[in-house]
Amino acid sequence: MASSIDPAPSVDPRTGLPVVAMVGGGQLARMTHQAAVALGQSLRVLATGPDESAALVAADVRLGDHRDLAALRDLADGATVVTFDHEHVPTEHLQALVDAGTRVAPGPAALVHAQDKLVMRRALAAAGEPQPAWAEAHTVHDVTALAEDVGWPVVLKTPRGGYDGKGVFVVDGPDEVADLLERHGTLLVEERVAMVRELAVQVARSPFGQVAVWPVVETVQRNGVCEEVLVPAPGLDAETATAAQELAIRIADRLGVVGMLAVELFETSDGVVVNELAMRPHNSGHWTIEGSRTSQFEQHLRAVLDYPLGSTEATAPVVVMANVLGGAASAEDWAGPALDERVHHFMAHWPDVKLHWYGKGQRPGRKLGHVTALGSDLDEVRARAVAAARYLADGVVDPAFAFEHDH
Amino acid sequence: MASSIDPAPSVDPRTGLPVVAMVGGGQLARMTHQAAVALGQSLRVLATGPDESAALVAADVRLGDHRDLAALRDLADGATVVTFDHEHVPTEHLQALVDAGTRVAPGPAALVHAQDKLVMRRALAAAGEPQPAWAEAHTVHDVTALAEDVGWPVVLKTPRGGYDGKGVFVVDGPDEVADLLERHGTLLVEERVAMVRELAVQVARSPFGQVAVWPVVETVQRNGVCEEVLVPAPGLDAETATAAQELAIRIADRLGVVGMLAVELFETSDGVVVNELAMRPHNSGHWTIEGSRTSQFEQHLRAVLDYPLGSTEATAPVVVMANVLGGAASAEDWAGPALDERVHHFMAHWPDVKLHWYGKGQRPGRKLGHVTALGSDLDEVRARAVAAARYLADGVVDPAFAFEHDH
Repeated sequence: MASSIDPAPSVDPRTGLPVVAMVGGGQLARMTHQAAVALGQSLRVLATGPDESAALVAADVRLGDHRDLAALRDLADGATVVTFDHEHVPTEHLQALVDAGTRVAPGPAALVHAQDKLVMRRALAAAGEPQPAWAEAHTVHDVTALAEDVGWPVVLKTPRGGYDGKGVFVVDGPDEVADLLERHGTLLVEERVAMVRELAVQVARSPFGQVAVWPVVETVQRNGVCEEVLVPAPGLDAETATAAQELAIRIADRLGVVGMLAVELFETSDGVVVNELAMRPHNSGHWTIEGSRTSQFEQHLRAVLDYPLGSTEATAPVVVMANVLGGAASAEDWAGPALDERVHHFMAHWPDVKLHWYGKGQRPGRKLGHVTALGSDLDEVRARAVAAARYLADGVVDPAFAFEHDH
Repeated sequence: MASSIDPAPSVDPRTGLPVVAMVGGGQLARMTHQAAVALGQSLRVLATGPDESAALVAADVRLGDHRDLAALRDLADGATVVTFDHEHVPTEHLQALVDAGTRVAPGPAALVHAQDKLVMRRALAAAGEPQPAWAEAHTVHDVTALAEDVGWPVVLKTPRGGYDGKGVFVVDGPDEVADLLERHGTLLVEERVAMVRELAVQVARSPFGQVAVWPVVETVQRNGVCEEVLVPAPGLDAETATAAQELAIRIADRLGVVGMLAVELFETSDGVVVNELAMRPHNSGHWTIEGSRTSQFEQHLRAVLDYPLGSTEATAPVVVMANVLGGAASAEDWAGPALDERVHHFMAHWPDVKLHWYGKGQRPGRKLGHVTALGSDLDEVRARAVAAARYLADGVVDPAFAFEHDH
């Protein structure tokens, strides 16, 4: 990557500072814009509609589809660098931008490892990094062959397009496999790891090769969706923590990542294995907004601009981030207190829990926002964050959490 | 104020959350927009030009003059509440908005105390609050009469429109007075207080009457412009600190302030006296972005929306904010390193100092941005913040500060 970076980047003539363009208008772009404002910048956003999370708050919004090369070219025109809030831009479009002289970070050769899980597995295998047993499955036999080695159930994944548990299928035997292959084409098959819990590591890497890593966190998942992030990962021994950080740095370096890399890990009795990679700010790093001297959003901007990276020093002994997920009711069926009323009560009850609301419409299971609590006692901080997030989601105070909070 | 607040405020139908409209597009509006984004909102800004600090980053920008009632009405249309990043809106226009049913916070009857120093002095006198000896000066005799009591020099101030030392004149005797009265009309004349130093207190007040106060800070001024803010005010005895906080709360309450109130104080051998009031986020409170659990910008939004206020708990034992002031050279004459290069070196040298750049053009003495450093040792934290701010201003590492920083 380094050789493709222009030493005299284009800047906004109004401010003398660079312009970062981000493909995607979701909450990651929204929070990246907040970080950009502090750095004297204004994030340029490619959104598919004017009501997307970032489009509601950014000054420079281009409406268009991330699969449309013309829209991408318009986004890139005059920008210092193009980066991403999701992985869904076709590689050939990114290559076309690079060929036209646009700085793209992470570059297409790196990003493909976050777009295609088979490509990622092959690269980690070539690097000798720890990961679950896996195979590329074109036929039922490819799946049963792996299952004979590692035992049922196994996990089938669509190589592209999955997120938050979508495109992931746990199968107990060969019966369902033919149908899944028929519906989805080539799949990745993996052993179902006997894991203790899920962990994640965030690392930033600049084109210059500087890296900055945060403490290892525990991610608490429910139905394939992250609900809580506990920082630092409770009770993780220092050796495993350091090994996980070193693993993340090695991957960032080997794949030539520019920007943020989130490495999602399974902790097993033997250490850690890599589950997935994301090359952008990631839900497991939202805690850094308040919990670290430099947030993942600021760091992503610094990294893609080849600015020196910021300190990842912790600002509190314990940080817990809890997602606010849309409840069972859709916006039309909602019978609870209105959002503005819930925000009022949230603020009254938890004056020290920080709100991040994404401005999105309510849908069951949708990530609507998150909250962050800081302190020194994990149980207290966690109870506070989770109770606040659940109240914001459904307007009901969970008696169990109310009890913990009041005592 | 409380009775004028609608219990069911208008919300943005896209988000279900309120819309705050701010008159003024400077750095205070810019940083308020950042805070609004976290709360699920998008600040609506009335700016006089598209390149103003907040206009560069906000999604909902109205261009117009704050002295134009039609522009103010357009800004208010559909907004939940109208508030301010400066004090320059004519009272009659604010009253017209209120009469038309617009929520204005702070309301015109409160805001006039931050607009007109004579009104402020009269109100504090009526309340029996500590302030310098003062008089309303229409004639030279009005000035000499006060000077006979308190001695020369005295300070003459234009009641309206002054800031950062502008509109303030220290006069050593009666000779200059006639000319100043002729040029400016009625003036406020004050004793020149024998002060130890300048302090400031930030307090937020909601229409409901809830208040939240931050620690007392020391503001270090040069040529009438704030250069540094030291938090908490070094060596301030607890009794004086509490008295200053109680004074700020009393003033907020008595004047019916809604939103942020900054009380600028002179510390004397006897305690504190009030210098000036500002009813908005204020330079002396920028440290709260990183140094407090709730920033003054978030708190201002919470207060004007009658949301419950956030915790003002400190996040570090010592915080120092240093302003980056434009150096002697204008943008055209600038011969030092370009801004983007200075930002690079700033980030490399001070990875734990937080940048806030306002996107404004360089002009001598202009507030271009600020930096915040946190830690536990005042001398170390202050040296770090000041050296970083000076480097950003002129691209020259001050040897004195470099020395302190390296040892």
